[in-house]
Formats: sequence, structure tokens, C-alpha cells
Amino acid sequence: MKSVVIHSAKDLRIEDRPTEEPGAGQVEVRVAAGGICGSDLHYYNHGGFGSVRLKEPMVLGHEVAGHITRLGEGVTGLRVGQLVAVSPSRPCHRCAYCSESKHNQCLSMRFYGSAMPFPHIQGAFREVLVADAAQCAPADGLSVGEAAAAEPLAVGLHAVRRAGEILGKRVLVTGCGPIGLLCILVARRSGAAEIVATDLSDFTLRIARQNGADNTVNVGQTPERMVAYEANKGFFDLLFECTGVAQALAGGIAALRPGGTVVQLGLGGDMQIPVQTMTTKEIQFKGSFRFHEEFFTGVELMQRNLIDVKPLITHTVALDDSESGFRLASDRNQAVKVQILF
Amino acid sequence: MKSVVIHSAKDLRIEDRPTEEPGAGQVEVRVAAGGICGSDLHYYNHGGFGSVRLKEPMVLGHEVAGHITRLGEGVTGLRVGQLVAVSPSRPCHRCAYCSESKHNQCLSMRFYGSAMPFPHIQGAFREVLVADAAQCAPADGLSVGEAAAAEPLAVGLHAVRRAGEILGKRVLVTGCGPIGLLCILVARRSGAAEIVATDLSDFTLRIARQNGADNTVNVGQTPERMVAYEANKGFFDLLFECTGVAQALAGGIAALRPGGTVVQLGLGGDMQIPVQTMTTKEIQFKGSFRFHEEFFTGVELMQRNLIDVKPLITHTVALDDSESGFRLASDRNQAVKVQILF
Amino acid sequence: MKSVVIHSAKDLRIEDRPTEEPGAGQVEVRVAAGGICGSDLHYYNHGGFGSVRLKEPMVLGHEVAGHITRLGEGVTGLRVGQLVAVSPSRPCHRCAYCSESKHNQCLSMRFYGSAMPFPHIQGAFREVLVADAAQCAPADGLSVGEAAAAEPLAVGLHAVRRAGEILGKRVLVTGCGPIGLLCILVARRSGAAEIVATDLSDFTLRIARQNGADNTVNVGQTPERMVAYEANKGFFDLLFECTGVAQALAGGIAALRPGGTVVQLGLGGDMQIPVQTMTTKEIQFKGSFRFHEEFFTGVELMQRNLIDVKPLITHTVALDDSESGFRLASDRNQAVKVQILF
Amino acid sequence: MKSVVIHSAKDLRIEDRPTEEPGAGQVEVRVAAGGICGSDLHYYNHGGFGSVRLKEPMVLGHEVAGHITRLGEGVTGLRVGQLVAVSPSRPCHRCAYCSESKHNQCLSMRFYGSAMPFPHIQGAFREVLVADAAQCAPADGLSVGEAAAAEPLAVGLHAVRRAGEILGKRVLVTGCGPIGLLCILVARRSGAAEIVATDLSDFTLRIARQNGADNTVNVGQTPERMVAYEANKGFFDLLFECTGVAQALAGGIAALRPGGTVVQLGLGGDMQIPVQTMTTKEIQFKGSFRFHEEFFTGVELMQRNLIDVKPLITHTVALDDSESGFRLASDRNQAVKVQILF
Repeated sequence: MKSVVIHSAKDLRIEDRPTEEPGAGQVEVRVAAGGICGSDLHYYNHGGFGSVRLKEPMVLGHEVAGHITRLGEGVTGLRVGQLVAVSPSRPCHRCAYCSESKHNQCLSMRFYGSAMPFPHIQGAFREVLVADAAQCAPADGLSVGEAAAAEPLAVGLHAVRRAGEILGKRVLVTGCGPIGLLCILVARRSGAAEIVATDLSDFTLRIARQNGADNTVNVGQTPERMVAYEANKGFFDLLFECTGVAQALAGGIAALRPGGTVVQLGLGGDMQIPVQTMTTKEIQFKGSFRFHEEFFTGVELMQRNLIDVKPLITHTVALDDSESGFRLASDRNQAVKVQILF
Repeated sequence: MKSVVIHSAKDLRIEDRPTEEPGAGQVEVRVAAGGICGSDLHYYNHGGFGSVRLKEPMVLGHEVAGHITRLGEGVTGLRVGQLVAVSPSRPCHRCAYCSESKHNQCLSMRFYGSAMPFPHIQGAFREVLVADAAQCAPADGLSVGEAAAAEPLAVGLHAVRRAGEILGKRVLVTGCGPIGLLCILVARRSGAAEIVATDLSDFTLRIARQNGADNTVNVGQTPERMVAYEANKGFFDLLFECTGVAQALAGGIAALRPGGTVVQLGLGGDMQIPVQTMTTKEIQFKGSFRFHEEFFTGVELMQRNLIDVKPLITHTVALDDSESGFRLASDRNQAVKVQILF
Repeated sequence: MKSVVIHSAKDLRIEDRPTEEPGAGQVEVRVAAGGICGSDLHYYNHGGFGSVRLKEPMVLGHEVAGHITRLGEGVTGLRVGQLVAVSPSRPCHRCAYCSESKHNQCLSMRFYGSAMPFPHIQGAFREVLVADAAQCAPADGLSVGEAAAAEPLAVGLHAVRRAGEILGKRVLVTGCGPIGLLCILVARRSGAAEIVATDLSDFTLRIARQNGADNTVNVGQTPERMVAYEANKGFFDLLFECTGVAQALAGGIAALRPGGTVVQLGLGGDMQIPVQTMTTKEIQFKGSFRFHEEFFTGVELMQRNLIDVKPLITHTVALDDSESGFRLASDRNQAVKVQILF
Repeated sequence: MKSVVIHSAKDLRIEDRPTEEPGAGQVEVRVAAGGICGSDLHYYNHGGFGSVRLKEPMVLGHEVAGHITRLGEGVTGLRVGQLVAVSPSRPCHRCAYCSESKHNQCLSMRFYGSAMPFPHIQGAFREVLVADAAQCAPADGLSVGEAAAAEPLAVGLHAVRRAGEILGKRVLVTGCGPIGLLCILVARRSGAAEIVATDLSDFTLRIARQNGADNTVNVGQTPERMVAYEANKGFFDLLFECTGVAQALAGGIAALRPGGTVVQLGLGGDMQIPVQTMTTKEIQFKGSFRFHEEFFTGVELMQRNLIDVKPLITHTVALDDSESGFRLASDRNQAVKVQILF
């Protein structure tokens, strides 16, 4: 079985790996599509991010969908041939955080394609995947690409749920990569009255406008257009910060009304931010990390035609061309979501 | 009538100012006690803070209580001779934020002793004060010192209310100045199970232990004692950050459980903080600024003996010795709350 | 100026009433359309409801829109000729509840067309209306019918806001009169995953399906279809109860998951309800009454094409035919929203 | 080993039952004290309640504490001889509700001394109890009586947590049985400003005043004293309804401010209640059923002297006198909490 394995920065190989047998409660999935995510790109371009570094070869990938080929013992509710979206999240269900229903904070999480513990948690860019039945969301009626987008959609859903009330609110989204665009889609679906998106790339801003943003600002070219939003202590109720860049966060805070909420999705290390303004304006900042049950919710919302992620899947590549896919996905002026077809 | 007037850094004068007549809906108050607050100290020691600078002489003071000497036309529910705590907060009641019940964010706030607009808003350290009846909380049964502590108590109450659920929770308080100590008192009153306080001063930490902290850490001397709280992703549910110092905030975040809440009271400009950790641990950060209806709540809680602020009033000085009071209050190894007796 | 005046049950008259002059901060509006609401029908059919009874003739109507014909002194932000939706809600802005931003609970509310205090608060079914500028939401781009639907839409928006989280949730709506149908529209707009609606009328259930309900049950004909939703302690996360009938509320509670939420909009006096089940399933019940700032939000959502109320306006009648409009609106098998054109 | 077994109404027997071996992860506990609860009394006096009826003999009791006598394989963190409070709650940790952290709604709950499924879940009034280590809260420093009160205390803690914000609020508690009195203790601990309690028994009202109630009303003797609380649409922010009687709930709702919250603990079947008033006043009603992690919180709060339940334990009886204890506990004019000493 072929797998997409990262050895070190820029050393990506298509390798043969042995297949496994599905145990009790597990299924075997013939992977059909896999989306390349920002963390995959970090491993590919830089060999890791922050203190997280590759120490051994690792199969990449955590946004996959495919068709069930075998059912392990005791599996019910799924059938051979069925398209499923496979959640990469495998919490322990036993630690204190799992017991509090904060599964995304599990002390023993085994999330696909993650170099955080050692040995690394191998990923899902492989032709055949053995997964727990509980990871599989039936995706009947979806395309394989849509099903493979369930994971980043879940990230957007989780973020919007953390935001709290959104019906009739004014929303700023900073950063229009796949996650920012999904926040726009979900915020629109949730009744936001007005959505403004910012980025440095006109390409992604155009896609933002086509997928729910009412207005966009290229903050590289016309940063002054944000100033109007700062009058009367601010304009927006909510900020979805998807860049991890201090300047974007600081600018967003200046444009938030007192009592407004930042949902932070972008990961950018330590940052110099306007804590005093956040204090006097009584800003609420909420970190948003991965997702949990939103994975299944997202599949359902796509099935019911309430969310359409298809316009965000700008490119697909064949398995053997995976590396070109990684290069393409690294270029924010050309691509949003790039998926590998297995 | 004598007033305590700041002209520039270290230039504090006791000056005569004319008295006013109470208009309709107003009362005349013979001020009895006034607490010196951190912002008063900033004007005294530095002539301002951040971009807020003195541009003309200003009466200081916004923590005062006194006895009513005259009632303006139409005032009911108050009587001559009655002790009242006077709220320094005078929102416009008309702007968008007032209409949303965020009066502390009023676009036209006139808060006593504040150099923010120009002309400055004159303060309440004066022998005779004319105030709106609506600013006055009847304080029958309290000492004048307790009544004058209603304002900082309201700051603590507002912060604890913003924290959300506190019953049975583990609480960290960084910074044991008056506001930190009041957060401890209120957190204890609200059912916190365990309260740990940090500071650089053994003097204030001893007062913290005497007023509700279960445990204290002098982070200047034994910072390593905080490390144990970082195991298993963190120990505390809540952090009341009362220093405005980046190191305290960062250390507190490391000791917070995933999903934990920071209530930020300390004002310290822009700060380098661990935004990535806040994101992956899904920390909730809430600025807390001043107060609103908590002023009246605080007076009532003191009257019912549910909160006792008296141990925090470590020193009183006579009006003519005001400057010595300002010097004393500037020394965190000697004093907590210093009040001027008028 | 002609007005629609109710004298007693079934005694509806078109009468001449004198016009008023717009004072400072007011505008004169030439009313264009007015929707007949359930409370109007109660006055028409029964002379009141519960303990609220007509004691003198009263102009009916509180769902109106029209064009501005004159501006009183000091009015800015509106212009002669502009279409505005006029909010019937006139809170005092001074009582304790207004100060807490619970304006819909104002102790001195003067809501159009309301027999609750005496003398009654006269309504807005009149050719010319003098209103405060603050009551007027600019409705440029909307039809007069849509603008006149801003009021019931605001009721639906308020209810959905009270419901809390709705993205991806399962929603039951009991009662498909105008308010139930608006709850469906708003719940769909807010990201509900699945919406089931019940009623006794196939006519309104068909309109429900055409406007966002995924599934409907005629509980008069096939009540047994609700039983499946009771398995595993319940299916729905949210219930919008729009009938005020005990049986509907009880049935909805049986179909709610533990921890689920009832938003009660229907008004039906005292009712025999399953309090023990609500307790053991930890149901949350929230009354929802009128609205406040949602009036302006609703106009904006219609202007942005995010909510379309037009399919709910099933009939319009001329002013002189008002009584036929009242009769039509009383028949749930024929009409949803009936509007009078002035 | 002796057990307290109910066979049918008024047929309570002390019987010998075989002991069990502690399995892996379990401990053997020598039970020291067991409190008689309202549900035990229902089985004793009436053979059940509502549709829950005894169908076979059942060991009663779910409020117990004792000393560990043996540790099963793999148990850590507990030691032989240690006093533990034993939680009666045994959720499955696998169903949908457990996964959402609503363990008290578990679809397969096995709660001690409960006739709800058949065969019944046997209770804990027995000399020797084998329990999961995870059910045991170390209770070092507490008396056996206090430890045995952890269970009803957890019910009170759960209810107050469900209430939301309580600091500085006005609280009404209807019904001063053990649960009502514990709500008073916890509400006071959580910063309630004013607590009023009602009952029909002067005996329990006196205990209420001694344990935190500021004021009490005997609604059998002076119901008119509640009328004053109805002015201006209501006085209280929160109601803890502990009777399950419609009149108490209706009276409490009349005395609640608009937007106020009812936490319903009393179980009383279907009830005729003022749903229309709840709707127009936008009352929030929340059922509160049992508890989950609050069991451990309660033990800690007692250990830290933050909650004192001792004054509520009015009587203790020897195991062989259990029936006299049941009779005593049934008399609300003589007893609050009666405990059996094993």
C-alpha cells in the first residue's frame, strides 16, 4: 500500500507500507481523497513548527475520506462500499478532559499525522486505512472531495460554536486560507448580518467574496480601509483570527466593539498584543483548537446542502503527484484547498 | 473647600476650590473618607500612564464616601445626615453602549479624576462634593472607610462576575495589591474551593493569606513553586491577573487548565504573551474594566457582613497629610489601601 | 385620517381620527401596510384575552411600515419619502429593567394597540402616524409588506436568540401560525441541521415545508408519528412552542433530549405540564416575549436577502375591507399573514 | 452482613445478605453512616412514587460513607482504613449523554437503591459495600456523618451551578427539607446577597434561619407576606423550588423578577403552572436532577470548612433501629436529616 511519507523538510516520498487487519470495532477504508492542511505544509516546508519537529519518518495527512472495504467484528451501522469521512481525532475517552467532554484536550490524544509525541502518530495519506468505526461519519450523497473536507469544516464549526451568538452580528475574518474561508461559510450559515474578510492575497479575497463575505480588504494594499471600523470604539461583534500574526490580531481588536469576541484559530507562537486595550474594552478572547463532535455535524450539514465546501477545493492531484500538490497548496495566490486523489 | 489637586508628577497641592449648589436630582455630600487608587498614584508619580497625560490641574480621587448635607429638588430615598458611598461612574445613559447595559463602556463617560478627555474630569478628593442622587449608595451601618472602599470592591465584584462559574473552582490571583486582594475576598465569598495568590511582596502575601488565600507564592523568591501547577496541562480553572505584567499573565496561562479563564484587570500596555498556548489550550481571556451596578451590590454585601474589607485598609491620613498618604500607598511592602480622612 | 378601531368583539369600525403634529425627535409617517397579528384577532374575535379586556375604543395594529412625510425638529438620519418600518415598542428608557437592557420588560411600556393599561395604548392602523425617529428602521429596498413584517420577524429573532446555540441542532416547532413559521425561517438561517414542524392544519404545514421545515407532522391526524422522537430519552435539542396549548408543550418535552431547551412563545394561561419530566430530564424552559433591538436586525437581514418573509404574506386587503382581512386572518386553513394596504 | 431491605410499603426488614469480593478497580468499604433520603421514604411509606413501584425486595440507601477494608487489584490513590464518601451514581461512561458529560442523564445509569429498572438497583444500606474506586471520594478529616452527607450536598451544588450567576443576587428557596436547606447553605456560600426561605413547618424554618436564610415565611400561616415580593413585577432573581408543589412554584414565579430563573428540584408529577406569566416575564426554568462531579467538590468544600452540613444532621439511629429512623425522617416538624449508624 502506497503512503505519503515526510522524512524531513522538502523530503516527501511515496512509500510502500504494510496494511493492517481491522480489529473488533474497526473498519478497513480504501482512501479516496485527502486534503493537504497547513500543518502538513509545515512539515513539508520546514520539518515542523515551533518546538514540534520531525524525529522520524511520518505518514502525513488527517483530512481523508474513502469507501469501506471490510468491517471488523461487531461493527454495526456501517456497510461495505459506503463512503465515510474519517475523523483524525482519537481521544482516550478516559482522562479528566475526555470525561468533561473536552475531548480535543485529551491528555493522550492520537491525532493522525502529528509529530507531537514520539513515536509520532502516523497519518492517513495512505491507500488503505484501518480506523475505528466510531471515527467514521457516513457520507452518503457527498463527493469524495466534500467528505475529505469534513475535517477542516469541523474546525470552522467548532470556532463558530465557541464564538457564541452570531445571528445578526457583524463579523471580521482575518486570513482567508482554507480555515478563514470555512469560518466565513459557517458564519454566513449561522446568520451573521455582515462579514468582512481581510488577507494579503487578492486571489483568496475573491474567493471569500464568492463564498459569503460581504466585503474584503487587502490589508497589504489598502490597510487604511480598516480605520473606519475603529470609530465609536469599534464596529465588529466578532473576530475570527486565522493568521496567527500579531498585526492582524491587533488590528482586529481595534475594530471590535467593546465586549466583542475574538476567536483565535491562527497559531503563531508568542505575540505582542494590545492587552491593555483588550482589558479596557472588555474584549473576550477564546482560543479554538481542532474540534470534536462537530466532525459529524459538518458531514450532516453538507449532506443537507446547508454548507457547500466545493468551491474551496481548487485543485486535485494524483497520489504520485503528491509533492506538486504540496507545492501548489503552499502558494496562497493560486490555491485554497488542494486534495490528493488516491 | 479644600481639594487634593495634582498639577504634574510629584506636584500635589491642597487647594481651595469653590463649592457648587446641588441641582435637581442632586445631593451635597460632606466627604468623610477617600481611598487612594493605583490611577491616582500614576498621576502623582508619573503625571499619567500610557498615552493618558495631565494637561491641566486636576482634583484626584474616585473612591469616596461621606454624609449628605443637602438634598437638591426632587431627591427621594436619601436623607440629610446619611452616610453614602458615591460612585465615580457617570455614564450618559443615552449612547449605544449604555442602551446595551454596558455603561462602563459609555462613549461619554465622566469618571471622577480622569485625565482622559480634555478638559479633564475633576475628581472627588474634596471636602464637599455635589453628586447625582443616583450615584449615591446608602451605606448605613458601615464605617466611612468601608463605604469609601465600595469602589474598588465593585471592581473586584465585576471581575468575579465576568469570570463565570466559580463555586468549587481553583483560582489563581496574580498580584496582591488592593484589587488582587479584593478579588481574593470576592472569590472566596463566591465559593472558590482553592485560592492561590502570587506577588513579589511578602507583606501583601501575608495579607492575602489572612483574607482568604489558601496558599501564596512569592514569585520573586520561589518561582519554581509554580511549576507543579503546570502538570497535566494545568491546575487552575480561573486566573485573576492583577499586575499587568506579561510574565505574570504568561505564568498564569501555563498553570491554567485547558478551557480555563483569565480575567484581566491589570493594565500594562501591549504585552508579549503566549497566544499559541492560549489557542491550543482554548483559554478564555476576558478583559474586566471598572464596574457598573456592582457598586450598589458591594455596599449591600458589606452591610450584610458577607464581605469584610476592613483588613485591607491599612492606613489612614489626614487631608493635610495627603501627600504622605500617596507616598505610603506607593510602597507595596508597607501598605495596601491608604485612605484620606477629610 | 382613517383608523381601524375596535369597539368590542366583532365591532370593528373605520373611523376618522384627528392627525397629530410631529414634535422634536419625531416623524410623520404615511402608513403603507399593516399586518394583522394574533393579538389584533383576539380583540376582534373576543374583545381581549385572559384578563386583558377592552374598556374603550382602541385603534388596533402594531405591525406597520410607511413613508416619512415630515421630520420633526432635530431628526437626523432619516429623510422625507423614505420607507421605514415602525417599531411598536416604546419603553421608558428609565426604569430598572430598561437600565438592565431588558426593555421588553419595561415597567411603563407603551406598546401600540394594547389594552393592558387604561387608557389603552392606541395602535398604528391609521393613515398617518406620528412616531419617534428612534422607532423607525430605514427599510430602503424592501417592499412595504416586508417592512411591515419587521415586527413579527423581530419576535422570531428574539426567540431564536434566547434559544442559545442552534448551529447543527435539531429543532421542533409546534404551531405554524406566522410566529411559528418565522421561527422556522430564523432557525434555518441560524444553521439548524434539522427542523420538524407540527400543526393541525395541512395548509400551514405545507407553507412550513416550503419555508425551511425538513419534515412536518399533522398532530391532529397522525400524532403517532411523534413517538419515534421519544426514543433514547428524546431527539430534539430545541423546541419553539408557538401554540400555547398544554398538549403541544407536553408532547414537545417528551421529544426533547435531556438538557434540551424549550423557548415558549405561545400564550395560553395556566397549563398542566410535565414538571417532573422537565426536572429529571433537566429541561431548560425560557419564556420569550416580544423583542427589542431585534427589530432593526430583522430589517437588515431582509435587506441583505438573508431572510425572506414574502412567502408568509398570503393576503392583502384594502383599508376599507379591513374587517374581511380580520376574518381571513382568523382562518388558519386559508391564511398566514394578512396585511392591510393603506 | 446486615442490610436494610424494603419489601413493600411499611415492610422494612433488617436482613442478612451475602458479601461480595472487590474486583479489579474496586474497594470493599465497611459502611459507617447512611442518610435517609426522600426517595427512601417514598419506598418506605408508599412502596414507590409515581409510576416507579417496588416489584421485588430492594436494599435501600444511597447516601453512605465508610472506611476502606480491602483494595481490589490495581487500585491506587486510596488506602485501607481511609474514610470515603461513596457516590451512588454509576453511569456507563459510553452512551451519548456520558460522552456529552451529562452523566446524570446516562441511558444505563445504575444508581443505588433505585426501583426504576427491573431487576432493581440494590442500595447501599448494608454493613459491607463493594464499590468502584472511582465512586469513592477520600473524606479524611470529616466525620462519618458529614461524609455520608456528600450525596445530598452534591444535589444542592448541582442545583446552584445550574442557577448561573448568584453573587449579589436575591434568592428564594421554597421547601426547607434537607435539599432546600442545602440549597440555602450553598447559595450563601456562593455569594447570594439575600435569601428568603418558605415552608409550612416552623421547625425547618428555624433551622433555615440558623443556616443562612435571612428571612423566612411560613406560607401555611402568613402567605400574605409573600405579596410584597410581587411589586414591580417581582423581587427575586432566583428560585430554588424544592417542594414539587404547584402552589409553591406558582407563588415563586409571581415573586421572581422578569428574566429570573427557577431551578426546579422538587419532584411532583404533572402540575398546573402559570406558563403564560413565565412567557411574558421571560422566566427561565431549569430542571435539576441529581449531580455528577459535584460529589467530589462537596467533599472538598466540607474538608476546607467552606460548607458545614453538621447542623442539618438532626438525628442518628442504630442499624437495628432503622425503621424508627424512617418514621422520624418522615416527620418534617421533628427532623431534617436522619442517619443510620452501621
